[in-house]
Amino acid sequence: MAKITAVSPLAPLAFPQLPVIDGVAFATIAAGVRYQGRTDVMLANLDAGSVVAGVFTRSATRAAPVLDCQEKIGTPSDAPAAILVNSGNANAFTGKNGIESVQAITAAVAQTCGVEQSRVFTSSTGVIGEPLAHDRITASLKDLRASLSPDGIADAARAIMTTDTFPKGATATVEILGKPVKIAGIAKGSGMIAPDMATMLVYIFSDAQIEQKALQKLLSDYTDTTFNCITVDSDTSTSDSLLMAATGRSGVDVTGNAAFNNALHDVMLDLAHQVVRDGEGATKFVEINVTGADNDADAKTHAMAIANSPLIKTAIAGEDPNWGRVVMAVGKSGAKADRDRLSIRFGDVQVAKDGWRSPDYSETDAAAHMKGEHIVIGVDLGLGTGTSTVWTCDLTHGYIDINADYRS
Amino acid sequence: MAKITAVSPLAPLAFPQLPVIDGVAFATIAAGVRYQGRTDVMLANLDAGSVVAGVFTRSATRAAPVLDCQEKIGTPSDAPAAILVNSGNANAFTGKNGIESVQAITAAVAQTCGVEQSRVFTSSTGVIGEPLAHDRITASLKDLRASLSPDGIADAARAIMTTDTFPKGATATVEILGKPVKIAGIAKGSGMIAPDMATMLVYIFSDAQIEQKALQKLLSDYTDTTFNCITVDSDTSTSDSLLMAATGRSGVDVTGNAAFNNALHDVMLDLAHQVVRDGEGATKFVEINVTGADNDADAKTHAMAIANSPLIKTAIAGEDPNWGRVVMAVGKSGAKADRDRLSIRFGDVQVAKDGWRSPDYSETDAAAHMKGEHIVIGVDLGLGTGTSTVWTCDLTHGYIDINADYRS
Repeated sequence: MAKITAVSPLAPLAFPQLPVIDGVAFATIAAGVRYQGRTDVMLANLDAGSVVAGVFTRSATRAAPVLDCQEKIGTPSDAPAAILVNSGNANAFTGKNGIESVQAITAAVAQTCGVEQSRVFTSSTGVIGEPLAHDRITASLKDLRASLSPDGIADAARAIMTTDTFPKGATATVEILGKPVKIAGIAKGSGMIAPDMATMLVYIFSDAQIEQKALQKLLSDYTDTTFNCITVDSDTSTSDSLLMAATGRSGVDVTGNAAFNNALHDVMLDLAHQVVRDGEGATKFVEINVTGADNDADAKTHAMAIANSPLIKTAIAGEDPNWGRVVMAVGKSGAKADRDRLSIRFGDVQVAKDGWRSPDYSETDAAAHMKGEHIVIGVDLGLGTGTSTVWTCDLTHGYIDINADYRS
Repeated sequence: MAKITAVSPLAPLAFPQLPVIDGVAFATIAAGVRYQGRTDVMLANLDAGSVVAGVFTRSATRAAPVLDCQEKIGTPSDAPAAILVNSGNANAFTGKNGIESVQAITAAVAQTCGVEQSRVFTSSTGVIGEPLAHDRITASLKDLRASLSPDGIADAARAIMTTDTFPKGATATVEILGKPVKIAGIAKGSGMIAPDMATMLVYIFSDAQIEQKALQKLLSDYTDTTFNCITVDSDTSTSDSLLMAATGRSGVDVTGNAAFNNALHDVMLDLAHQVVRDGEGATKFVEINVTGADNDADAKTHAMAIANSPLIKTAIAGEDPNWGRVVMAVGKSGAKADRDRLSIRFGDVQVAKDGWRSPDYSETDAAAHMKGEHIVIGVDLGLGTGTSTVWTCDLTHGYIDINADYRS
């Protein structure tokens, strides 16, 4: 595991103050799964009345805990539940050992917490292909249970980190019919990749009252415009998981409430941006706005081709307004484009227009924009009304340092 | 333009001895298009009886000379012809200026060489989005014409280089009915990308006798298993072009001749491998063999997902047999895979089998293979008979150095 201890230059100034969510308690422990001298297991206990929704990686080689969660999410329930997450080992590509570990952990959590095994959701993140020492986790469960506290979410955000350089949290409170409804979320991830296949995990909690199916639909829809719109390096993990629990304790039914929906979307987008801001080796936060595409799907294809291009990501690292590379990425994406209608902006600077360098293009102005920390690339296809916005980071020597290091 | 003068550690020991191809003559000149102190234009003159076939980038933003060549290739002819290539400027994304430059150059070459304008093929490679100073090229044509020589192909290979660290050539001679048929090819490219969007260009010459349509089919078919099976960084250029001319001067009809076909395939593969060996920052030549896929298309999708994964390419740079990342790439590729049938080899070392680490896996042996210069990754899906082999290089600090430098 590469030792990259410095905090990302794009990190927020501080971890946000996350509110207590009535009906949820957290505990963390240093179980020694792989790391020494830090917490590596978190337990979240959900009281009766909670519904749980989830979105997971579409990888064909997804890990055992992911498959187990997917199955359980498919059977809505509001019985008491628990979420257990370990870092240090992904329990991915571990064959039948992987399934046995999930069985052992979920059975033990069920017994310790007094919930049904079908209501225990687990995630594992870290090294791939090594059996998970699940006995270290089950041996810690009594201590974990004893230390459950409604205030523990910030510690939980730290326990699930792998190569992250900062813990990630976001929150929102909306007032509905005079009552507050709270949302608090945590995430881990340094992009989709990390030295040992650590991956992106997100947990969001709310005291909202909402049916599981409605929550699931919200979560799936908003994932498309938040977590599915970020990329660090185009590599998709075997373990990406997003779980959301709504405890109902606010007593407010949020079904179809626009304010709640917007707040949830904002929390998800905030966490997604924090993952990009902790992208391996990142020094620039990059926003790509595509407009004028034939349709939204085409717009996203172009935006992702730009966001994943090593050539563009290195140019951004070098603060080079190399717009020719944007032309290249649009050309290769496979989505519809007409070279002679293409316009490109870097920040507010019109770089190219109608298929050639803009007549009033100033390389000095474009270069000034590239020196900033928040880079905005705007591309208009001039074809239709399709739009997409995605976020990424630059590709630097830091990325090579982190990923070319031999595992130890 | 980044100054990377050291020759790739993967370069061949020497440029090969290329035979004279009867019916073809070459000339080069330092026209000062962009570079100083080196040749930057090459002219190849093709005698009457020559047919010309070509394969081009599928980029939606392809350059003016590419569009012009594609149109001309569509009308078979064996009238005298000429190929003119400049380096330093790609004449891409230059709007109507681009078309005017192509018109000016092809008209001038036609007049100087006494060929029809419809038989003048041009390519341009280098910086994108800047008008091509085509008058510097047309002003050099008389001198070029005067220095045409059947021996000039090695000089031509140098004149078309941009950020290449070595000139690329390959040759084969086959004996058919007691007569030799010769093939000689040159290429430029440091992968699909370079600091200023320089791109891959290939020119192959033969004295074979063959109809244009038959030659075109051979060239298209073999491109699929050679040039379309290499990747340095997944970025596709706006100018990739492959032209082949057959002069017929050997007097040997090679139509349907397996020995000729194999020789042509070998020359194309050799040139393709040399482009990978000059991949920006490359220190390892990587071969990826996928077998047991549901079909060949799925096999290639998996192989390319592995070859383009920054995570795998950095692991190879770090000499890390990080097979978990191969599992990840197969999982994300989108092609059919069953985690529990997946087997992985690094060189001769069986790493994973049937969905888990192989029982007799030796990390020491795998690490020893990774220290070599030629890395072979074998993946068997265990599903069917689909196969694919692709070639790539590692991702190193050298790549960042070359591509994050500000253009000058």
